[in-house]
Amino acid sequence: MSDPLPQGSVIGILGGGQLGRMLSVAAGRLGYRCRIYDPAPEPPAGDLAHAVTTAGWDDAEALTAFARACAVVTYEFENVPEAALDAVEAEAPVRPSRRALSVSQDRLTEKTFLADLGLATAPFAAVADDGELALALAEIGLPAILKTRRLGYDGKGQARIDRAEDAHAALAAMQGAPAILEGVVEFTREISVIAARDLAGDVAAYDPGENAHRDGILRRTTVPARLSAWERADSALIAGKILNALEYAGVLGVELFVTPQGLLVNEIAPRVHNSGHWTQAGCAVDQFEQHIRAIAGWPLGDGTRHSDVVMENLIGEEVAGVMELARKPEVSIHLYGKGTARPGRKMGHVNRVTGPAHRS
Amino acid sequence: MSDPLPQGSVIGILGGGQLGRMLSVAAGRLGYRCRIYDPAPEPPAGDLAHAVTTAGWDDAEALTAFARACAVVTYEFENVPEAALDAVEAEAPVRPSRRALSVSQDRLTEKTFLADLGLATAPFAAVADDGELALALAEIGLPAILKTRRLGYDGKGQARIDRAEDAHAALAAMQGAPAILEGVVEFTREISVIAARDLAGDVAAYDPGENAHRDGILRRTTVPARLSAWERADSALIAGKILNALEYAGVLGVELFVTPQGLLVNEIAPRVHNSGHWTQAGCAVDQFEQHIRAIAGWPLGDGTRHSDVVMENLIGEEVAGVMELARKPEVSIHLYGKGTARPGRKMGHVNRVTGPAHRS
Repeated sequence: MSDPLPQGSVIGILGGGQLGRMLSVAAGRLGYRCRIYDPAPEPPAGDLAHAVTTAGWDDAEALTAFARACAVVTYEFENVPEAALDAVEAEAPVRPSRRALSVSQDRLTEKTFLADLGLATAPFAAVADDGELALALAEIGLPAILKTRRLGYDGKGQARIDRAEDAHAALAAMQGAPAILEGVVEFTREISVIAARDLAGDVAAYDPGENAHRDGILRRTTVPARLSAWERADSALIAGKILNALEYAGVLGVELFVTPQGLLVNEIAPRVHNSGHWTQAGCAVDQFEQHIRAIAGWPLGDGTRHSDVVMENLIGEEVAGVMELARKPEVSIHLYGKGTARPGRKMGHVNRVTGPAHRS
Repeated sequence: MSDPLPQGSVIGILGGGQLGRMLSVAAGRLGYRCRIYDPAPEPPAGDLAHAVTTAGWDDAEALTAFARACAVVTYEFENVPEAALDAVEAEAPVRPSRRALSVSQDRLTEKTFLADLGLATAPFAAVADDGELALALAEIGLPAILKTRRLGYDGKGQARIDRAEDAHAALAAMQGAPAILEGVVEFTREISVIAARDLAGDVAAYDPGENAHRDGILRRTTVPARLSAWERADSALIAGKILNALEYAGVLGVELFVTPQGLLVNEIAPRVHNSGHWTQAGCAVDQFEQHIRAIAGWPLGDGTRHSDVVMENLIGEEVAGVMELARKPEVSIHLYGKGTARPGRKMGHVNRVTGPAHRS
C-alpha cells in the first residue's frame, strides 16, 4: 500500500506509440506529467506529453537520466530489452514489475507460468532443433503452429505446420531463434479481458470483449462478447488469478479462446491493450486511466460498462475514410498522429456506442 | 467551405490554461498537434501539447513566429489584446473570428449586438461619469449592477448598487474604466447553451445545462436543465442566431437567464466554456473536439446527450478531496495539473453520470 504520487509527479513511459499517447492523456487527467522514451524521433505520444527522450534502448546514460526524472516508470510494449530495464530500475520503480515482463516476453515461460497456475492453454512444447520438433509434433499432433519464443506480435514470427513435411522449413524460417510448438485450438470465438490490480492489491476486470482479427491484426472488438454467464465469470477469475500470482500493478490484457471445453488462455500482455480501447466510450474510467491509477497509488476507478460498444481499428489506408465516419452518430474517433499510412500500420480507431449496456 | 486541415497540422492556442489543455487533447484525437502561447512558464496546457511558446502578449516577434508555425490559431480566453491578434492574424487565420472576440470583449458592444439581433437582455446603459450614472439609474432603476466594459470575469470588476447613495463609490471603484450599468434581472435559474458552427455554416447546440454559482464562480452544471420544451427550443434558436450573425467558426458559450417572460441573454463567450465540461461524459463528441472540428474544417460531430450528467468544479483546496471522489461510481475526474491550490482557483472538475439521458 502506497500513498498516491503527488500531483505534478512525472510518470515515465517506455515507448511512444499510440498506447503511450493515450496513457499520457490519462495521466494528465489525474494531474501527472509524462516523459516518453523512444528511439524514434517525434513519437506519436510526444505530441501529448510533457517531455520526450529520444535515445536508443542501449543508451544506458540516457535511460538513467530518463529514470531519474521520473517518480515511476511504466511501458507500452512488452519487448523492452532486459538491459534497458536494468538501467531504469536502478533509478525508479518499474510498474508493472519485471516479473510480469519476463513472463510475457517468452512464450514458453508464459505458457509454463499459466499451466503452473492451473489454467488451460493450448498444448505446447519447447523446440530447439529438428529432433525436438519431431517429438513435439508426435505429442501435439497436426496441425500445429511453430512460434519464436520471443519478440512475436501481430502474427509475425509464426509458421503453421499442416503436414509433417513442412516441419523442417518452418523451423529453418525461425533462423535459429528458440521456438515453441503450440497445438491448434478449435475455438468458437476469441475474447479478451482487460483487468487491473492496484498497489493495495484490489483487482477489477472490465467486461470481456469479443475480438475479430484479420492477417493476424486485431480489426474489431465488440462488447458485450457472446458468452454464457459461466464463461463471463470464469474470464474475470482467470484474469484475477494471473494478476495476483504476479503481484501485479497496472492493467493486464488476457486473450482467451472460447471452446466447448471452457476458456483457454492464449496470451497475456502486461500493459493496456488494443482490445480495451472500447472502454474509452463504454466506462466512466477507461483502461488508460485505470493503468495510471494502479501504478500511481490511486484506488481503481469504476470500470462498469455503461454502454455497448464496437471498436474498430483504422489500419493503413483505411484512415482516409475518417471523414465519412466523422459524420456518423454515436461515433468517437481516435487518430494517433502518425505520418504515413503504411499497410498494416494502426493509424487510429473508432468507438461506436451501440446502446446502453445490456446483459447478454 | 474548406477542406479539413491535413493530418499533423499545427493548431495554435492562445492561452495555456485548462481550456487550452483540453483543446490540445481533443486536437490530438483528431490527428493534430497543438502549440500553446502563454506568458507564464509551464502552463497547464503545456503538459499535453506538442510545443509551448513562453512570451508576453506584447512580444510581436514571438507572436509572429508562433503564428507562422500554425495552420490556424484559436484562443481559450476572450481577453487576448488587440495588438497581439493583429500580429497573429498577419500570419495565420484566427478562428473564431476577430469580430466574435471584439463583440465579447466589451460588455456594451456585446449587449448592443444582442439587442440589435432582437434578443432580450437585461436593461443596460453606458456609463462614463457620475452624471451618466445618475441618468442610467433613473432609467434602469434599483437595484442595478455597475460593471467595467472590458476584462471582467468570474464576478471581478463588478459592483452592485442597491441604494442611490452607493452609486458614486461604485463608479469610483472602477478607477476610470469605461463602465456599463445593467438592471438586475429577476430570474428563476441560470442556464447556458454550448453551440458550434463549422466552416460549412452548419450549426449544432448541446442540450442546455443549469448552472449554480458561488462567489461569482461556476460551481455546478446539471444536465438536463429544468426547462419547458419551449424554453429548450428557444435556447438553441438564440445560440444559432448569434453564431450565424457572427459567421462564427468554433464553439460558443451563451449564458441565459430563465425568467417568467422568457429567456434573457446574460453574456456570450467565444470559446469552449466551463459549463460545457459535462459534454465529456454526456456526448460522443465533447465541446473541445467540436471546437477543433469546427476550426479545422471537419463536419460537426454528434453532440446528442446520451447521459445525464452533473459537473462540479474543484476549486482551491477542494482538490484535496479528490481521492474520495476517485472511489465513487460513475465519476470521471479531470485535474488540470496546476501547482498551487489558491482560493478561487479552478483546479479540476468532476463529471458524474446520473443515468441514461431522459427528456425532462
